[in-house]
Amino acid sequence: MAKIEVCFTPDTYGVYSNNEHIVVVTDILRATSAISTALHHGAKEIIPVSTIEEARAYKKKGYLVGAERNAVQLEEFDFGNSPYSYMNDDIKGKSIVLTTTNGTRAIDLAKNSYQVVIGAFTNFDAVVDYLAASGRDILILCSGWKGRYNLEDTIYGGAITQALERKGVLTEIEDSALSAMYLYEMGMDDPYKFLMNSSHRRRLKNLNLKEDIRYCLSLNRTDVIPIYKDGKLIPLRELQLMDKK
Amino acid sequence: MAKIEVCFTPDTYGVYSNNEHIVVVTDILRATSAISTALHHGAKEIIPVSTIEEARAYKKKGYLVGAERNAVQLEEFDFGNSPYSYMNDDIKGKSIVLTTTNGTRAIDLAKNSYQVVIGAFTNFDAVVDYLAASGRDILILCSGWKGRYNLEDTIYGGAITQALERKGVLTEIEDSALSAMYLYEMGMDDPYKFLMNSSHRRRLKNLNLKEDIRYCLSLNRTDVIPIYKDGKLIPLRELQLMDKK
Repeated sequence: MAKIEVCFTPDTYGVYSNNEHIVVVTDILRATSAISTALHHGAKEIIPVSTIEEARAYKKKGYLVGAERNAVQLEEFDFGNSPYSYMNDDIKGKSIVLTTTNGTRAIDLAKNSYQVVIGAFTNFDAVVDYLAASGRDILILCSGWKGRYNLEDTIYGGAITQALERKGVLTEIEDSALSAMYLYEMGMDDPYKFLMNSSHRRRLKNLNLKEDIRYCLSLNRTDVIPIYKDGKLIPLRELQLMDKK
Repeated sequence: MAKIEVCFTPDTYGVYSNNEHIVVVTDILRATSAISTALHHGAKEIIPVSTIEEARAYKKKGYLVGAERNAVQLEEFDFGNSPYSYMNDDIKGKSIVLTTTNGTRAIDLAKNSYQVVIGAFTNFDAVVDYLAASGRDILILCSGWKGRYNLEDTIYGGAITQALERKGVLTEIEDSALSAMYLYEMGMDDPYKFLMNSSHRRRLKNLNLKEDIRYCLSLNRTDVIPIYKDGKLIPLRELQLMDKK
């Protein structure tokens, strides 16, 4: 008995909120893509924070800090949210603090659900397999863009819906997930082109993020599943090791 | 310079709110379809109220009152929100009070915008022509279902977007409106069948609303454009007559 819904912006999360379902937080461009990349490349954990002030406080304490607003890295910090900046050896074993325009807020909202999973195309199959095995209801929580709906997070929700539907584990697909799936199916042959026809085209083109976007739309670069635990995002396998001890 | 966006549920209206744009409130099944029908059939005005208590107070004062919750008419009142119940001669010249699960709340939220227009497939072309002539930015405000996204209001937003795009009056189509348009285009050959595949199918089938739904999806039964003015919904032409005096 697994139901799937998509919440298109964090502002409506209150309507969907419950403590039984798994929430997959997604911010395809680029927070959740970057988070799965950083953990794949050996970061010990990601500490998501909502404000610049919190990020600054961690920076003073000596943490590596990523901070992005309006798709641009803030200069005083170590990273923005480009996945490419989380691919170097300096991050191995380190705790990384991250604040972004949209994604970290969504994580914060969902933390009282049964479990928060960080989802992106870059860890697609791993998340699908985990959700399918869980048997739980699923909410895809899109980070959106400053409270607004966006297409890239939506098609990710649609891709997850389609994959779980094909596995035969869904008993209910709500209107939101059905719509997201339809939109994904329209764009799945060339998601890059599909997104470039969207209104974010201008924003994304202006920022010269083409390489980032292509990376964020590529499937299965990693099988790491970041899970929220006590204020941190850690790989699921670390959580499982902790539980065994 | 006209931009169009779709707000999928009233809960996110705050993000889109401004006092320059025209807000088209829609609740296809069935509040806004019923409102345009009632004004077409001679009702003087519709007074939307949010609560059952307000509706009851008006009833005591002798008003005709429509009240619906969970798609069912409340027994103590005169109507539910079936458009068919607003087609009889008893309503001619009368003020009708209306409260519904979703639609009246959306109207209330949007009342500080430049103008609130009531939109449905049943008054489709009239609303499109009015919006095209206005030159203003447009927000389609979907009533949704208890704070959740629904497909029927979304495809109405998509239909409006497509019609205005074809008229060449749009300079910006936001992701939300673009997605709605894509979904409308998927279902436009047979919107009834398209909706019946949605999750609301069970709710709608259970309530035996087939005739209502077919009516609510039919185009251009009227050219009346209900406009919000001082707590009431009146036909645009009445507003124009008042302005001339």
